Amino acid sequence: MFKTLIMQTSLITKAQVEKAFSMQEYIDTVEKVFKLYGEGKVEMPSKVYLSFEKGDLRSMPASIPDMKIAGVKNVNVHPGNKDLPVVMATVTLIDPENGFPLAIMDGTYLTGMRTGAAGAVAAKYLSREDATTAGFIGAGQQAHTQLEGLMLVRKISRVLVHDMSEEHMKKFAYDVKAKYGIAAEAVSADEVCKADIVTTTTPSRTPVLDSVGKGTHINAIGADAPGKQEINPEVLKDALVVIDDWEQASHSGEINVPLKKGVVSKEDIYANIGEIVCGKKACRESADQITVFDSTGLAIQDISCASEIFRKLQSEDLQKIKFF
Amino acid sequence: MFKTLIMQTSLITKAQVEKAFSMQEYIDTVEKVFKLYGEGKVEMPSKVYLSFEKGDLRSMPASIPDMKIAGVKNVNVHPGNKDLPVVMATVTLIDPENGFPLAIMDGTYLTGMRTGAAGAVAAKYLSREDATTAGFIGAGQQAHTQLEGLMLVRKISRVLVHDMSEEHMKKFAYDVKAKYGIAAEAVSADEVCKADIVTTTTPSRTPVLDSVGKGTHINAIGADAPGKQEINPEVLKDALVVIDDWEQASHSGEINVPLKKGVVSKEDIYANIGEIVCGKKACRESADQITVFDSTGLAIQDISCASEIFRKLQSEDLQKIKFF
Repeated sequence: MFKTLIMQTSLITKAQVEKAFSMQEYIDTVEKVFKLYGEGKVEMPSKVYLSFEKGDLRSMPASIPDMKIAGVKNVNVHPGNKDLPVVMATVTLIDPENGFPLAIMDGTYLTGMRTGAAGAVAAKYLSREDATTAGFIGAGQQAHTQLEGLMLVRKISRVLVHDMSEEHMKKFAYDVKAKYGIAAEAVSADEVCKADIVTTTTPSRTPVLDSVGKGTHINAIGADAPGKQEINPEVLKDALVVIDDWEQASHSGEINVPLKKGVVSKEDIYANIGEIVCGKKACRESADQITVFDSTGLAIQDISCASEIFRKLQSEDLQKIKFF
Repeated sequence: MFKTLIMQTSLITKAQVEKAFSMQEYIDTVEKVFKLYGEGKVEMPSKVYLSFEKGDLRSMPASIPDMKIAGVKNVNVHPGNKDLPVVMATVTLIDPENGFPLAIMDGTYLTGMRTGAAGAVAAKYLSREDATTAGFIGAGQQAHTQLEGLMLVRKISRVLVHDMSEEHMKKFAYDVKAKYGIAAEAVSADEVCKADIVTTTTPSRTPVLDSVGKGTHINAIGADAPGKQEINPEVLKDALVVIDDWEQASHSGEINVPLKKGVVSKEDIYANIGEIVCGKKACRESADQITVFDSTGLAIQDISCASEIFRKLQSEDLQKIKFF
C-alpha cells in the first residue's frame, strides 16, 4: 500500500495535518474504526503512563489490520507549560507488513479533532435525531471542536454555553457567530442542561452537571485521569451509559470516581461505542431516554486518522529522513 | 539541560549514532542506569507488544529522572524481511520538564550496542576476574557486539565459537582476527562451554548449552520471546541466576520456559543486575560458582544511551523539524 522501498520516513508538521483532513473526514474515520473495535478487529493495549514532576507522558499503541496500519502516539500533558503547548503529541506510523516507520507526524491537532469526531459519532448514534440545541459546559478549545463535529451530524440551530471564564465564553460566542452565524447564549450550567445535547469539556474533579431533562444526550469529554468527574452520578444511574473502552473509562473516564465509590458498577454500563456503531447493541430506545457517552480517547482514533492523513499527503513534497 | 525553546525536534540517523558513541561509552551508560534501576530510581512500565501477521512491534517507554530524560523506543521484529532490515527501531526522547520531543533517532544500531554493553556489565560484576576465554554459541551480529563488550571488561585472549551456519562462523573468525588479532576457534557447542565466559545469542527454542564447568559465567542473550530458551534448566538450578528485570525475564527471557514448566521458581532467581551493580546484592561468592545473566533488554538501556548520544551530537548540524 505504501511505498516503503525507498526506506525514507516521512515527517509531517501540524500545519500539514491541519490542511489535510476535514472534520467530516475525522468523523468518517473514527466511525469506521469504532466499528472495527466493536467487531473485535483491532489490537489496542492499555495506554502506558510515565509520570514526571510537572506532568506526564502517555504512550498509546494500536494496530488496525483492516486498515493495514499500526502505530504509537506519544502525548504529554504539562499543565504549567508557558513557552510551549501544554499538550504535544507525535504519532509514529508503522507498516505492519515489515515494521518500517512510514511517518512521524504531529499528533497535537489530530488529538483535538479525533476527540471532536468521537463526540459527533456518539451524538449520531445516541442523540435524538431531532436534536437542535447544543449546550456546552466548558468553553475551551475542545468545546469548539465538539461543536464543529455536532454541526455535521445534527441540525444544530441553538447553542448554549457556560464557563467559569468570561474570556472563554466571549471567545466561544465570537467564534460560533463567525463560523456558523449562531448567537451562542451565555447561561448558567443548569440552563445549559436543558439542551438536547450537552457536552462537558472541563477539567473538573466535582460534578458540574447536576441533572438533565428527558431525552438529553450527554457527551462527557473532560474526564481523562483518575479523580476527574463532571457529571452527578445520579444522572449516570438513570441513563444509558456508553463508554469508549472499559479499561480506559474505568481507570480515568467519567465513570472512574463513581465506580470507585460504588455508586455505579460495571453492570450499569450499557455498551461501548464500538458495539453501538457495529450494531451489536441497539441505540436509544425512546425519545425520553437519557444517554451518556463517556469519552477517554482511544489510540485507534489517533492511528486511523494519522494513517488517512498520511495517505492523503503521500503525493505532497514531504520532508523525509532515512533513519537506517 | 537541553535547548528546547527553539521548539525544533532533532532527527538523528543510524550513521550519526554509529559515529557518536563508543562501546566503552555504552558500557558506562548501561552500568550507570542499571545502578539507578537497582536503587529504584527509574520508571519503566512493561514493554507493550503489537502482533502482526509477519512480525511484531514492541513499544518500550522509560523515564530516568536522574538523567533528566524520558522516552519511548519502538522496535519491530519481522524475521521474513528481505529488502528491509529484520529489526528497525526508532527512539523518541522526551524532556520530562515540559514534555517536548527533543529528538527522534535511529534505535537499531543502539539496540545492538546496548545489548552488548549489558553483557559486558554482567561479565564485569559476575565473571571471574581472571577470565581469559570467551565462548560463543551463535555467531551472528550480536556475538560480535558481545565480544566487543567483553574485550573491555576482561583480558580475553582466546575465543571459541559454535554456530549451525558455517558462513556465520567464518565471518566471525575473520572479523575477530581482523579486529583483535585473535584466532577464533570453531568448535563443538560442548567445547565452547569450557570457556570462562559463555555467551549464547541464538533464536533457539530448545537448549543449545547443556552443561558448563565450574566457575563459568554465562550471558544468555538470545531468549527474548515466550517459548525461547538456550540453556539446559539443570544448569540454571545449580547457578547463581541474575536477570535484568523480573517482569520481562519471566515473560520472555531465558527463564520463561523453565518457569512455566516448574523446573525453576522465582526463589531460584538470585537478583536483578541492578541490585548487583548498586551493591544491594553480592557478586559471585567463589571461583567455582557458575553464574548466569539472563538479558532481555530494558527500555532504560535504550533511553539512557539515546540521551547521551543526543547530548554528544547537540553541537553538530543535525536535521531538525518543527512539528508544532
